[in-house]
Amino acid sequence: MKVILLPENFKKAISYGERFVATKPQIPVLGNLLFQAKEGQFFVAATNLETGIKFRIGAKIEGEGAVTVPARVISELVASLPTEKVFLSVEGEELSIKCGRFTATIQGLTGAEFPVFPKKDKGLTLEVPTTFFQEVVERVGFAASSDESRPVLTGILFNWQRRVRAVATDGYRLSLMEADLGEGVVKKEVEVKTLLPARSLSEVERVLSDLGEQTIRLTWSLEQRQMFWTTGDLEVVVRALEGDFPDYQGIIPGEGETIVEIDRNELLQAVKLAAVFARDSANIVKWRFTKEGLEISARSSQVGTNITTVGVDYHKGNSGTIAFNSRYLLECLSRFREERVRFEMTEALRPGVFTGVKSKQEFKHIIMPVRVQEE
Amino acid sequence: MKVILLPENFKKAISYGERFVATKPQIPVLGNLLFQAKEGQFFVAATNLETGIKFRIGAKIEGEGAVTVPARVISELVASLPTEKVFLSVEGEELSIKCGRFTATIQGLTGAEFPVFPKKDKGLTLEVPTTFFQEVVERVGFAASSDESRPVLTGILFNWQRRVRAVATDGYRLSLMEADLGEGVVKKEVEVKTLLPARSLSEVERVLSDLGEQTIRLTWSLEQRQMFWTTGDLEVVVRALEGDFPDYQGIIPGEGETIVEIDRNELLQAVKLAAVFARDSANIVKWRFTKEGLEISARSSQVGTNITTVGVDYHKGNSGTIAFNSRYLLECLSRFREERVRFEMTEALRPGVFTGVKSKQEFKHIIMPVRVQEE
Repeated sequence: MKVILLPENFKKAISYGERFVATKPQIPVLGNLLFQAKEGQFFVAATNLETGIKFRIGAKIEGEGAVTVPARVISELVASLPTEKVFLSVEGEELSIKCGRFTATIQGLTGAEFPVFPKKDKGLTLEVPTTFFQEVVERVGFAASSDESRPVLTGILFNWQRRVRAVATDGYRLSLMEADLGEGVVKKEVEVKTLLPARSLSEVERVLSDLGEQTIRLTWSLEQRQMFWTTGDLEVVVRALEGDFPDYQGIIPGEGETIVEIDRNELLQAVKLAAVFARDSANIVKWRFTKEGLEISARSSQVGTNITTVGVDYHKGNSGTIAFNSRYLLECLSRFREERVRFEMTEALRPGVFTGVKSKQEFKHIIMPVRVQEE
Repeated sequence: MKVILLPENFKKAISYGERFVATKPQIPVLGNLLFQAKEGQFFVAATNLETGIKFRIGAKIEGEGAVTVPARVISELVASLPTEKVFLSVEGEELSIKCGRFTATIQGLTGAEFPVFPKKDKGLTLEVPTTFFQEVVERVGFAASSDESRPVLTGILFNWQRRVRAVATDGYRLSLMEADLGEGVVKKEVEVKTLLPARSLSEVERVLSDLGEQTIRLTWSLEQRQMFWTTGDLEVVVRALEGDFPDYQGIIPGEGETIVEIDRNELLQAVKLAAVFARDSANIVKWRFTKEGLEISARSSQVGTNITTVGVDYHKGNSGTIAFNSRYLLECLSRFREERVRFEMTEALRPGVFTGVKSKQEFKHIIMPVRVQEE
């Protein structure tokens, strides 16, 4: 392999690639990036076997071939390279780099050791705006579990039809959004479900947000159970999770007995204040709806007590008490973009439901309450 | 105690105070902030017994008294307080806070338990620009040791005369700067030496940089061996370290056999590149002066090898090899503000000396080389 390329292209490819490298590689080559010159094109690729990325960058190719080198080393190196043309060449398992008055050889592994990048089969394809994934990761992904002992809960379930639905739950809360992806995305009669790991989606989203707003082609390979994201120069692949996602429909409550609208910032501020007092008592924050509004309070024998009264507009009902883990409330409320949120509850031990007021897209967040001793 | 104050003043005082609270308080009150209304003034104070701060803020005082509350709790709380007047009142050991629709009581300790803030005695006073300490912390403080087993090496030695000298060394490197503080600062015939902990100075500097450029009054209390920084509303005190600072004059080498000038950025970049290869081999980076310039290289059996040639202007001599720990080089070079640095060396095992070229203030940094096997 012998190629010449610009440092800015090299940096960009490496910064994409290094996010997809295994953090604790089971075999050394999974901690490496693949550099490959093939059929007149230069690629940088990485995989941790669950997710993979392949990025094509402009380069002058004077000889084909491939090599892999540790992602950590090359990524640190490019950060300090001079802004001059970079000359790469490979001898055996060593990559040589020349750039201005800098020369180096890096110990790598042959390209042949690198896992073969999965090939797209025909599958089902659809075109999706890149910004869609930002919304999914922000509004839904955070509700997925990080506990690997129940892998299905670490995923986001997508139901791809003309109207796409994305759901995640960790058993204590649930996020659900729907978006209309417009005409002819998937034929109406076909219902495709994919369960993709939330953590991987979040890496994919970071790459997509670098690309800016554009349309990206998705391909769902039924046979390999993998999702591909493709643009001209980029291909990302994520392996679907195995297993059955819980029947979340049963968790979503019907209309609540008390329904209110609340200013989101005011509510968020009140919960933040209560969280300071709740920290030493299992993060429990109590809500009490009264004629005066919503009383939010927390109590800790070590720290002290607090109450904030937040103004609410009642739509239905005007009473009720319920208690939540402050962490879940803070995470949920910070994901709404709307100025006002709608909250519905029925009784202390049944789930509370948050939705945005005047929201263009459907987004629903459900939190299971915590049981507290009555005083 | 009963006071009314503006949330922005309260926040500011607490943000100053919390930096001076003990991180792992040996007695609970050292993790607390003192709020005190006395003689028509309101103060927030903190101390970890080594350093202390007392800050006066505007407040309407309706009752005198004092209380202390955990810094962590109050600091988190003020971050989310509404932007309305804050009402503080004390009952026993409890602080009550009202602010808009928020009310809270925080469990504290009586003001009487708080250590008495040291009183300035006459001592020696001088006026110093606040920016002086920024330079001391940045250019000298980083060379102090963080190893508490030899406390004197964690300090910065100041020699206060008309010309002030500040020195720190951890045994492997030494930083020294001199600054002219102008007329009548200290009487010529008096030589005052203070050894102040570098870590504390760095906290003091953060407060001073918030104050912006101004003149601050220093008072050195010979009897209590404490340094006071005073402005209208602020008083900071730092206790001097006990013990004798090493005789650093003996460490500073005379003129080197090879003296060069180097572009600082180019040198920094070359060292950063070498550091990538040096990480797995004790951070050793080799320097070799030749007719072509300075060859900077590192070698690791795992990672690979590299060489960068950096252009130099020889003033004297034109050869020599020396090796340094890359961490020391990076830390030193990033502290220079000058475009070019001057480097002096004599032989492989004698210290290398860095100074700025065309520098207004005198700043000198000395690094002990590491011994390497000749190849």
